[in-house]
Amino acid sequence: GILERLDAGEIVIGDGGFVFALEKRGYVKAGPWTPEATVEHPEAVRQLHREFLRAGSNVLQTFTFYASEDKLENRGNYVAEKISCQKVNEAACDIAREVANEGDALVAGGVSQTPSYLSCKDKTEVKAAFRKQLDVFMKKNVDFLIAEYFEHVEEAVWAVEVLKESGKPVAATMCIGPEGDMHGVPPGQCAVQLVKAGASIVGVNCHFDPDTSLETVKLMKEGLQAAKLKAHLMSQPLAFHTPDCGKQGFIDLPEFPFGLEPRIVTRWDIQKYARKAYDLGIRYIGGCCGFEPYHVRAIAEELAPERGFLPEASEKHGSWGDSLSMHTKPWVRARARKEYWENLKPASGRPYCPSMSKPDGWGVTKGARELMQQKEATSEQQLKELFQKQKF
Amino acid sequence: GILERLDAGEIVIGDGGFVFALEKRGYVKAGPWTPEATVEHPEAVRQLHREFLRAGSNVLQTFTFYASEDKLENRGNYVAEKISCQKVNEAACDIAREVANEGDALVAGGVSQTPSYLSCKDKTEVKAAFRKQLDVFMKKNVDFLIAEYFEHVEEAVWAVEVLKESGKPVAATMCIGPEGDMHGVPPGQCAVQLVKAGASIVGVNCHFDPDTSLETVKLMKEGLQAAKLKAHLMSQPLAFHTPDCGKQGFIDLPEFPFGLEPRIVTRWDIQKYARKAYDLGIRYIGGCCGFEPYHVRAIAEELAPERGFLPEASEKHGSWGDSLSMHTKPWVRARARKEYWENLKPASGRPYCPSMSKPDGWGVTKGARELMQQKEATSEQQLKELFQKQKF
Amino acid sequence: GILERLDAGEIVIGDGGFVFALEKRGYVKAGPWTPEATVEHPEAVRQLHREFLRAGSNVLQTFTFYASEDKLENRGNYVAEKISCQKVNEAACDIAREVANEGDALVAGGVSQTPSYLSCKDKTEVKAAFRKQLDVFMKKNVDFLIAEYFEHVEEAVWAVEVLKESGKPVAATMCIGPEGDMHGVPPGQCAVQLVKAGASIVGVNCHFDPDTSLETVKLMKEGLQAAKLKAHLMSQPLAFHTPDCGKQGFIDLPEFPFGLEPRIVTRWDIQKYARKAYDLGIRYIGGCCGFEPYHVRAIAEELAPERGFLPEASEKHGSWGDSLSMHTKPWVRARARKEYWENLKPASGRPYCPSMSKPDGWGVTKGARELMQQKEATSEQQLKELFQKQKF
Amino acid sequence: GILERLDAGEIVIGDGGFVFALEKRGYVKAGPWTPEATVEHPEAVRQLHREFLRAGSNVLQTFTFYASEDKLENRGNYVAEKISCQKVNEAACDIAREVANEGDALVAGGVSQTPSYLSCKDKTEVKAAFRKQLDVFMKKNVDFLIAEYFEHVEEAVWAVEVLKESGKPVAATMCIGPEGDMHGVPPGQCAVQLVKAGASIVGVNCHFDPDTSLETVKLMKEGLQAAKLKAHLMSQPLAFHTPDCGKQGFIDLPEFPFGLEPRIVTRWDIQKYARKAYDLGIRYIGGCCGFEPYHVRAIAEELAPERGFLPEASEKHGSWGDSLSMHTKPWVRARARKEYWENLKPASGRPYCPSMSKPDGWGVTKGARELMQQKEATSEQQLKELFQKQKF
Repeated sequence: GILERLDAGEIVIGDGGFVFALEKRGYVKAGPWTPEATVEHPEAVRQLHREFLRAGSNVLQTFTFYASEDKLENRGNYVAEKISCQKVNEAACDIAREVANEGDALVAGGVSQTPSYLSCKDKTEVKAAFRKQLDVFMKKNVDFLIAEYFEHVEEAVWAVEVLKESGKPVAATMCIGPEGDMHGVPPGQCAVQLVKAGASIVGVNCHFDPDTSLETVKLMKEGLQAAKLKAHLMSQPLAFHTPDCGKQGFIDLPEFPFGLEPRIVTRWDIQKYARKAYDLGIRYIGGCCGFEPYHVRAIAEELAPERGFLPEASEKHGSWGDSLSMHTKPWVRARARKEYWENLKPASGRPYCPSMSKPDGWGVTKGARELMQQKEATSEQQLKELFQKQKF
Repeated sequence: GILERLDAGEIVIGDGGFVFALEKRGYVKAGPWTPEATVEHPEAVRQLHREFLRAGSNVLQTFTFYASEDKLENRGNYVAEKISCQKVNEAACDIAREVANEGDALVAGGVSQTPSYLSCKDKTEVKAAFRKQLDVFMKKNVDFLIAEYFEHVEEAVWAVEVLKESGKPVAATMCIGPEGDMHGVPPGQCAVQLVKAGASIVGVNCHFDPDTSLETVKLMKEGLQAAKLKAHLMSQPLAFHTPDCGKQGFIDLPEFPFGLEPRIVTRWDIQKYARKAYDLGIRYIGGCCGFEPYHVRAIAEELAPERGFLPEASEKHGSWGDSLSMHTKPWVRARARKEYWENLKPASGRPYCPSMSKPDGWGVTKGARELMQQKEATSEQQLKELFQKQKF
Repeated sequence: GILERLDAGEIVIGDGGFVFALEKRGYVKAGPWTPEATVEHPEAVRQLHREFLRAGSNVLQTFTFYASEDKLENRGNYVAEKISCQKVNEAACDIAREVANEGDALVAGGVSQTPSYLSCKDKTEVKAAFRKQLDVFMKKNVDFLIAEYFEHVEEAVWAVEVLKESGKPVAATMCIGPEGDMHGVPPGQCAVQLVKAGASIVGVNCHFDPDTSLETVKLMKEGLQAAKLKAHLMSQPLAFHTPDCGKQGFIDLPEFPFGLEPRIVTRWDIQKYARKAYDLGIRYIGGCCGFEPYHVRAIAEELAPERGFLPEASEKHGSWGDSLSMHTKPWVRARARKEYWENLKPASGRPYCPSMSKPDGWGVTKGARELMQQKEATSEQQLKELFQKQKF
Repeated sequence: GILERLDAGEIVIGDGGFVFALEKRGYVKAGPWTPEATVEHPEAVRQLHREFLRAGSNVLQTFTFYASEDKLENRGNYVAEKISCQKVNEAACDIAREVANEGDALVAGGVSQTPSYLSCKDKTEVKAAFRKQLDVFMKKNVDFLIAEYFEHVEEAVWAVEVLKESGKPVAATMCIGPEGDMHGVPPGQCAVQLVKAGASIVGVNCHFDPDTSLETVKLMKEGLQAAKLKAHLMSQPLAFHTPDCGKQGFIDLPEFPFGLEPRIVTRWDIQKYARKAYDLGIRYIGGCCGFEPYHVRAIAEELAPERGFLPEASEKHGSWGDSLSMHTKPWVRARARKEYWENLKPASGRPYCPSMSKPDGWGVTKGARELMQQKEATSEQQLKELFQKQKF
């Protein structure tokens, strides 16, 4: 089990971000970001799980991100009606388990924030949404549960409370930065509330780059220490550089989601992240949007001395570039060493682009009219109003 | 057949770069860059073919890049001995055909430049290497043949001559820029020689970004016109911005191959490329290293008005970002329009990095000692000498 | 008098930075940064005063920066011995008064931080150094006094106490950022201490860019309000962009002092600064290192609506670029408007350079061995030790 | 005389750009860029001459740029009528001679391109404009003559022909880049025509950065060699980085003229330029717009080994930063060495700005309606038309 591993001091490596990776592969739609691929194209989901497993992941998360009923029918989304919430969640469990069995990995069932909460539905209604997914996870007997990608600690606590009903271990990660949740609750307090609600593992995922995310987890750690609470720490950041983000993270950056390419982190950035996370005491180390299999492998390679082994995919990768000694061109063979890659400041090849962006800051959050869930698609008139509000 | 389609004025969409995509997925080793995954992990190769097919590719190239015998045993590579050149090529053909049959795609057998040529082996020996691969292609009955990724037109001509023996249509692309091949032959003359040798389709692939590559094809087109020769034009550039490249392309950039992330082009860059290529008269439009399925889809979406249909993967993609109208956050919905993405100058999030790099320029080419093929791995001593030569 | 003007609600425009401007003109040596030009080349000092006066300055500061006796004989400096502290200060007063009389400007005598303080000399000794300069200011009858460029509020308070002995109005500015002084005293507390010591005007000068400086003054303002103290506010920031500075300001940036060119602010940046400073309630608005006469003119032009008049030098400058309507080239005439210059994001023309730097952070301050004053020049051995300590 | 010095193999150091330096000091109006300061504020012109002399200039150019009668009355300019062309030119000669006599410098009378030429006035009329200035230069007995800042070699040749009537040595520089003059005449041919017309010294000034300018002079040198002509070479480039310029130079850059700050070159850039110019065989080495006295000093310091002496202003400057050994802060003292400054890639402190710009390219030249001289100011209607034409 996950807690046995962590309690024993093992490093647990998470997986990467499914919605972004599968969007690029053609199976997920940016906008709704829902996981109907589990039913529509199981082979694509299966292959991505396999790649993460091969890269070193010890946990395969069911591809159930944004798979709550309300999200599957939000703003014109057809999935709830044409496929059904239950089928999407069930297929996700089956695929994850199938691949997990090919190696030594655990399956984690995951829930994430709901449009219902943003639309000010009450606790009972929001919890019912989580419980619907949990029923599937229990039926399919996942190994543990993750409540992830929450912008408001209140909703995250509700999620943890529901998941705890199962008796299985619960991890909880919020998509917040050092400034705290959207209601202004600081990271330290968020961590305390989550642990009190029953989470055994807490941390952050998504929305910020590795450095910023580790800063946030550090604040969580300090909050827990101050409250004399114990929990394992977890981080699953973006694989994008986001030093210019405001409180709400990369969603606000003008490049989100179709112009983020120049921000993608290198494998060497990830090795630095893995080391820093380890030094901070984090033992559940993974990634989120932007993390591709080679990024997960970089975690496993950096921490190979501590873990004592390399992942399978390292058969096709030399540590710190040493496979380049097999390159035909001599000046590329000269790059087969750590000093080279460690110190490289990679150029963007984009001389007409800046290095930082001013994030959008519309200042709307839970309860704002424009955040309300609606079943029908966004209308032309609604879009027109938004375009006018946008400065660009 | 490929020529029927092109002769009829159809746009043919190529696929993307396998070695880079599969390196990130954990199945190809940077350095040797050889395609043993066809035997070792056929499911991974199959899945990538499927994604390109779904994204709109009309041609599936057999994953036989660098699959000549000499490359499979160069500098410590184990593939020739442990697997065999023939098995790698056969498996590649089988997988490509299997997936092509799932849709309306052609299978192209591909050969590329050889270490033998760089090591000054004679014409007979180099041709024998190509012929070995061709035998497999004939046995497996591919639809047509591609000679690609040649830095020297002399070797490319030899390849075309061999492939023409088959009677099948031959396409030939060189990995050169506007300055011409490594021996200084300008693009226009390269094109003329290739057509005279029997190629029906000529152009460029790899080594340079879309803009630079189109400049090179333009020079080829002018060369053919001046020589009153007819051929179809083809371009399969990098999906990396490389305005700072010298004559030899992105191999020389300090970021090659593990720090190229900030240079990755967006889908919008690709739409501009597709339009420009079309306007230049190119009708075989694809990609090379860095091209992921979503980049190929961007070609298909840009040229949908001319072709009259969208690719399957566009089910999960709105034209010019319009699926963002389904996003929860209003400021992201405000990005659901062409003007936004067309004008965005994406930031790198890397304020300590420059926008351009000075490429390595070692000035070694065919015949240089450090370029010679050798079966044994690069020795420590050889590496040490290279490190000293390197300025970094 | 200065207080009459400020009390009446007038905007008082300061001047710009003499040491940087005269270094570029060939009269000040970077390193010691001492003002012996008042004796050696009075015509150059006089001309710079005239340019600032013409640009709109209401105050001409005597060029007595770093003109304390201990600084004039620090690390091999010849000025104390060859010229004398008194002569440098006297000449500075005479030149400033001569030019002030050509217009409607006040003369302010200025003192700044001393090597004695950094070398841990006691209060009596440090005060004696300020008093020596004050004696000259009284003899020459300057209009008011400024204690500027202090990194430690303790020393600044000592300076204010000495200057207050004169009975003349005293302004005090520290070269600190939002993090406070080198001993960690926050800006709000610094302001409170300075006002309690007798300063009628408080604020910041040097070390940080306009935006950062205004942030610091805002904290000072809040500190004063909390303490129910009243004082006029003053800002004289750098004319360099320094978003990447740490606590100690631009001294730490690798570009200091000979590579700062790409950071120089435009006149439009200054107009934005002047407006923001005014809106924050600052009424003594000037500049420091990097400010050239055209930057001061930009303050005067931005605030012309409030003040009701333009400076003399605006005879040679159209508001927001409108003199470009006289340019020969039509595309330059098209730039004769505010929208153009207000929105321009100027390029650096330096594609191989980054946009931000990591500042040096040696963590040495008052009392550190390497900060001690010494009469003899830095020895080869001392330099060698420093070079080894430096990472570059 | 100038030719004696050059014939003897001496290095002659030119001065810097007056219109830009005096614009920043408040005496020249951007747009018309005319030199009425010689009459209105002689002390400012005198001081700038002195600074260049002190920095090492061997030639003081009369401040007669754009001082032809037609320019002094173009587009609303008042100078011809209110002051007179003759007085401006006479005062310029007097001031330059006065300062030249303070040291060992020559006075050069200068003419530059005319609106008359752009307005298609005939040869006689254009020559008459030059002759009017020449009459003053002869009366004031300047040491030699410079025809500078010509975009069309035809007009430059006319200028040289007029200046040659005086019997004094003539230098001629064009403001062109490697692509040649505005009519497409390549640099090599321009040089040949100028020498044939009587110029003893040829080269380029203004419009491009040091590197680009040297490329152009190299082409001129090759043109002269091919034509078996002899002349001394001269370069007076911008002190701005302009790698992104098109054919017409920095006028086209969106930053011209009020946002060029981030492009200003450092003293170290100038030392590299001086060395490169010298190695190319150029012996008249100076600067143009953007060159401040410290840039000229950098030429003199770089070439001090060849010349055997330092300029006066080096009393206030240590070679390659060594005066920093006198700085108070140890980490700044650690920068007192060549390796540090030579390798520094200075950051812009502008993370929201790009590194390169797309130049305006309106494609209008001699004869275009919008280039015509007109006495009356540009009308509102004319401006409005231009604003519409502008993309920004």
